[in-house]
Amino acid sequence: MNAFERLSLNTATIKKSTLAEAVELSAAAGLGHIGLWRDRVAEAGLEKSAKLVADAGLQVSSLCRGGFLTAADDGGQRRAYEDNVQAIIEAATLGTSELIMVVGGLADGERDIAAARGRVADRLAELAPVAQEHGVRLVLEALHPMYAADRAVLSTLGQALDLAAPFPSRTVGVVVDTFHVWWDPQLEQQIRAAGEQGRLASYQVCDWNLPIASDALLSRGYMGDGYIDFATISNWISQTGYSGPVEVEIFNQQIWDSSPAEVVQTVADRYRTLVLPHL
Amino acid sequence: MNAFERLSLNTATIKKSTLAEAVELSAAAGLGHIGLWRDRVAEAGLEKSAKLVADAGLQVSSLCRGGFLTAADDGGQRRAYEDNVQAIIEAATLGTSELIMVVGGLADGERDIAAARGRVADRLAELAPVAQEHGVRLVLEALHPMYAADRAVLSTLGQALDLAAPFPSRTVGVVVDTFHVWWDPQLEQQIRAAGEQGRLASYQVCDWNLPIASDALLSRGYMGDGYIDFATISNWISQTGYSGPVEVEIFNQQIWDSSPAEVVQTVADRYRTLVLPHL
Repeated sequence: MNAFERLSLNTATIKKSTLAEAVELSAAAGLGHIGLWRDRVAEAGLEKSAKLVADAGLQVSSLCRGGFLTAADDGGQRRAYEDNVQAIIEAATLGTSELIMVVGGLADGERDIAAARGRVADRLAELAPVAQEHGVRLVLEALHPMYAADRAVLSTLGQALDLAAPFPSRTVGVVVDTFHVWWDPQLEQQIRAAGEQGRLASYQVCDWNLPIASDALLSRGYMGDGYIDFATISNWISQTGYSGPVEVEIFNQQIWDSSPAEVVQTVADRYRTLVLPHL
Repeated sequence: MNAFERLSLNTATIKKSTLAEAVELSAAAGLGHIGLWRDRVAEAGLEKSAKLVADAGLQVSSLCRGGFLTAADDGGQRRAYEDNVQAIIEAATLGTSELIMVVGGLADGERDIAAARGRVADRLAELAPVAQEHGVRLVLEALHPMYAADRAVLSTLGQALDLAAPFPSRTVGVVVDTFHVWWDPQLEQQIRAAGEQGRLASYQVCDWNLPIASDALLSRGYMGDGYIDFATISNWISQTGYSGPVEVEIFNQQIWDSSPAEVVQTVADRYRTLVLPHL
């Protein structure tokens, strides 16, 4: 097994590359997996994307992303349902069981975050049978609390596990993305709980950079450039018995402006020195 | 009792005003309290500040701030101890029992947030007897997780209560600042716990504005300008039996650039319509 067998590059990290380019770079660097965004898959075509990845000998670690479940009106809820059914089908076609879910923020003008969270639970209950039917898992992603208003009212791993609790662990899981949860004083116990419940579906690594970028979504950085303790968190992940892919998803303008080949090399280097020894 | 008896303007909200100006504006608007930053007190002189406030018929709701307890070296720890002893003496002299504590971020180059949190607990244990002796309470402030690396490794109200647990409730308390904790799925239960433990020492209100300001510290806004549900949170506070001051502390460049009299008027108006009915 090569050092990068478990490493997965999410296509958003090299946002300007086509799917074919991302697949080629990943395979050339010896990565075992690739994480796909739906936009790149749509450009390349669903069936063709599946073939591209398979022909390169890669596994799809996850599909990003479903979700945005917090619409307060019937039309918005129906559209979210339909879009998520489509995402489930895409995940199944691409050969990944893991569909990452970013649940969405407050509805327009809404201030009642508890109500928005309630709607996420309602939508999950509608989608879970569809996911189950296609052998796909809805993977709840807790986003950093700085995105609670506009991106995801799901803010902690513990809350993700509570949301997942009514469903089978094969149908609703959770992802640990270090950027979003590194600060959480309950992180160790919640990672252990996720493992015990069989819900740990994905481990994603990137760093927390400061200052926060002017577009707050772009504050993610290469492992080692920020403040996150990858040794400790990776060790907690490992102790659950998780043996799946480790995905690197970085939104960062400077990285997007770099040569994709260099980005893949840096990701691989940082993974080998900062993450792999603790897995 | 006038509508603003419980309202307190923190001097940081009208950062450019002297203490004398802030006192005069607060009293003229009928506010019952004022929240003091140590810089304004130092400018005016400690004894003179106490007299200014008392002569205007105001109560000091809190002194901001002690803390920054995370230094990893002996020298830094000694300086933090000495500065906090001084802050305790200032609070007592100013006639407030509540010293707000911002605990500090990671030490230079540090990645082990658990270790940094451990040092906060150690420093608290050293300071608690001093605070007790002066009749001052160390009021732990959970800061928004986006400040965990550089400002406060204390990120949730639940974590603040855990830190406070070894100490008498009169000596170590907690503050609920809506900006920092509004997103927390455990907020209701932690506010209830703070009340039951007699540790709810301060309630601070301001809103969560988007986009996050280029200096992330300045993202705070007037109540009603952002995404926070003041009705619900104020109601939870009220249900604990908390009957103390409600302090408004806003760091916001646009507000700092406005006329202080207009700022006080807007703070009072927003308080009356968005907070007071739910207390």
